[in-house]
Amino acid sequence: MALIVQKYGGTSVANPERIKNVAQRVASWKRRGHQLVVVVSAMSGETNRLIGLAKEIQASPDPRELDVMVSTGEQVTIGLLAMALKEIGLKARSYTGNQVRILTDDAYTKARILSIDDQAMRADLDDDTIVIVAGFQGVDAKGNITTLGRGGSDTTGVALAAALKADECQIYTDVDGVYTTDPRIVPEARRLNAITFEEMLEMASLGSKVLQIRSVEFAGKYKVKLRVLSSLEELGKEGPGTLITFEDDKNMEQPIISGIAFNRDEAKLTVLGVPDRPGIAYQILGEIAEANIDVDMIIQNIGHDGSTDFSFTVNRGEYPKALAILENAKAKIGARDITGDNKICKVSAVGMGMRSHPGIASKMFRALAEEGINIKMISTSEIKISVVVDEKYLELAVRALHKVFDLDQAAA
Amino acid sequence: MALIVQKYGGTSVANPERIKNVAQRVASWKRRGHQLVVVVSAMSGETNRLIGLAKEIQASPDPRELDVMVSTGEQVTIGLLAMALKEIGLKARSYTGNQVRILTDDAYTKARILSIDDQAMRADLDDDTIVIVAGFQGVDAKGNITTLGRGGSDTTGVALAAALKADECQIYTDVDGVYTTDPRIVPEARRLNAITFEEMLEMASLGSKVLQIRSVEFAGKYKVKLRVLSSLEELGKEGPGTLITFEDDKNMEQPIISGIAFNRDEAKLTVLGVPDRPGIAYQILGEIAEANIDVDMIIQNIGHDGSTDFSFTVNRGEYPKALAILENAKAKIGARDITGDNKICKVSAVGMGMRSHPGIASKMFRALAEEGINIKMISTSEIKISVVVDEKYLELAVRALHKVFDLDQAAA
Repeated sequence: MALIVQKYGGTSVANPERIKNVAQRVASWKRRGHQLVVVVSAMSGETNRLIGLAKEIQASPDPRELDVMVSTGEQVTIGLLAMALKEIGLKARSYTGNQVRILTDDAYTKARILSIDDQAMRADLDDDTIVIVAGFQGVDAKGNITTLGRGGSDTTGVALAAALKADECQIYTDVDGVYTTDPRIVPEARRLNAITFEEMLEMASLGSKVLQIRSVEFAGKYKVKLRVLSSLEELGKEGPGTLITFEDDKNMEQPIISGIAFNRDEAKLTVLGVPDRPGIAYQILGEIAEANIDVDMIIQNIGHDGSTDFSFTVNRGEYPKALAILENAKAKIGARDITGDNKICKVSAVGMGMRSHPGIASKMFRALAEEGINIKMISTSEIKISVVVDEKYLELAVRALHKVFDLDQAAA
Repeated sequence: MALIVQKYGGTSVANPERIKNVAQRVASWKRRGHQLVVVVSAMSGETNRLIGLAKEIQASPDPRELDVMVSTGEQVTIGLLAMALKEIGLKARSYTGNQVRILTDDAYTKARILSIDDQAMRADLDDDTIVIVAGFQGVDAKGNITTLGRGGSDTTGVALAAALKADECQIYTDVDGVYTTDPRIVPEARRLNAITFEEMLEMASLGSKVLQIRSVEFAGKYKVKLRVLSSLEELGKEGPGTLITFEDDKNMEQPIISGIAFNRDEAKLTVLGVPDRPGIAYQILGEIAEANIDVDMIIQNIGHDGSTDFSFTVNRGEYPKALAILENAKAKIGARDITGDNKICKVSAVGMGMRSHPGIASKMFRALAEEGINIKMISTSEIKISVVVDEKYLELAVRALHKVFDLDQAAA
């Protein structure tokens, strides 16, 4: 018998029919003798509907009151799922964040979990009852309702698994695991049996939107065994999904490259000929940060004759705003010129193994060169190499890299 | 400065535009220097939408889980109204039933309020903050979410007014007060400036659905000054509505008859020639009660030769079921025959004054006779006289009674 925390997202609980399917899936685990805590999101579209209502009242809705109303989405789902489980003869009880009690700080709309009271849940589990918990929400020390921010239901799942010392936290989604790359671009893309937390973080931030980043960090911190599974597979014929592992796990297969991630929505800006002096990066990015624009890659090469060039990428939607800010600040920062390009994309090879395998970067660059793809920017971390290329080369680059690193071959 | 509790129903908060209108109305009272606690219902249609979702899962939804999800309707409205008040520069804070804390018993879907903690609300009111409370909901001693049953938001308003010793509880609805009868039937129907709790109870149960009965009982018990007002009237041009008064109020105008109530959806059943012995009424009505059919009027006249006739009325929708039950039980109860009529209606004259004015009943019967209306059943209480007549006479009877009791004339 194991204690399993399962999390089902908005698509999995989109309507009463799907909620009944989730109940059947939960029941199949229960019948195998496991104890179950099930975290659910709002029915898909519901959170956006509620935010839309709020915005009809206030352009920037009051955060406390927004959390009060948006948290109702998950509250509806827990009630419905508990009913669906009772309907098929199982004992079940729903919990809001307040009822659990999931204590958070008071940072409305982006609260952080401080502690979880496992007492009531434990009593229910010991009484053979399935515990249903509203994802995404908590309560602060004063009893105000808080939410954890978008995708926070994953975080709730992981946090509950940590608090209950669960054997596994299963994140059900509409894909059957994490893939070596997007199968829509490379049909040979393979599901990974396992991926490390560090790789998952790089994959997620690079656009493989299977799991919310914060929940992965959380799982890593508290050593929660996390598994990504599909809620759409036929009962009895489920695959094993993808296990998110720890690097120090023994006997873990360590492929050199685990996957090829990419991000289509990038734009790049370059500040040419700025004085090569301390504080210049802060001066340029400070203006961008004040406008609440997220910066992704940042590159500054060595300078010549006391001046240097400074490049960074932003989300494509923010490109015009970022360009205008730089044009305005041009004189103040002493730049010679501002250039930009919003027809670019980012392609990255991610893998723990690259740390112990030299030559990965050159292998990657050669593969791109052989396809005639010009590299516009390069950025590297311990376990990933990212390149910026013309947007039109995205599919070609992803396919070339998927092939050169043998990702279409099952690992030995 | 007064402390006023206001309650706005589902129609008044049906969409963001109307919620903004409610905010303006609340603001106009606030600007006059009053302290305000505002109770709101779910946006109209929302509660039914949620119940509909539940019924797609369970034909008879689990009561605890139904309350968990149905209570979200009001929770959305409190957030939106708090936003609307902040948007126009006022301080406001929303409270769920749990946050107030409105403690109830654990009778899910029809819970009764046990106590209300006024501490947090008082602190907000003293801080010049408008308190917004979700109607219809509470929490039991174990922290489970409960609801008070349909129309429970009125009860929440009255209970809060009692707990806070408010100067007045204002129930905003889509009519500007309680009328002498339905203006769609009698265009000369007048708004009553005042009506007693007892009259209101008789009017409400007879089909004048302005206020939920339980809230009126509650207001009477705790001596809460209750006023029915329209939320649709133009700001600055509001009428005084109808004040629900106590009989022992000094200087209170006591009209003989306050209004003519009616109920179209009635059906009558008669059990003919049953043995005139103790327990026969229980035997007949026991069968009906077991089928969960509500009985309204009950009439048994003196018997002859050891047998008697027994009549009662039920809601028209229950007529076929009630008839079938009686036919089945006919032999057991020893009845000669069962007859029935589902083309009837009930018309009632209601008024505190009739207790001290003899002759009201004969005046009523004469008025009906003059219109050629045959009376099929009669039932009386301290402050009302009800008759059952053919359905086709409903409008004629209501108009005749409205006229004969001078209800179209403003009270002296």
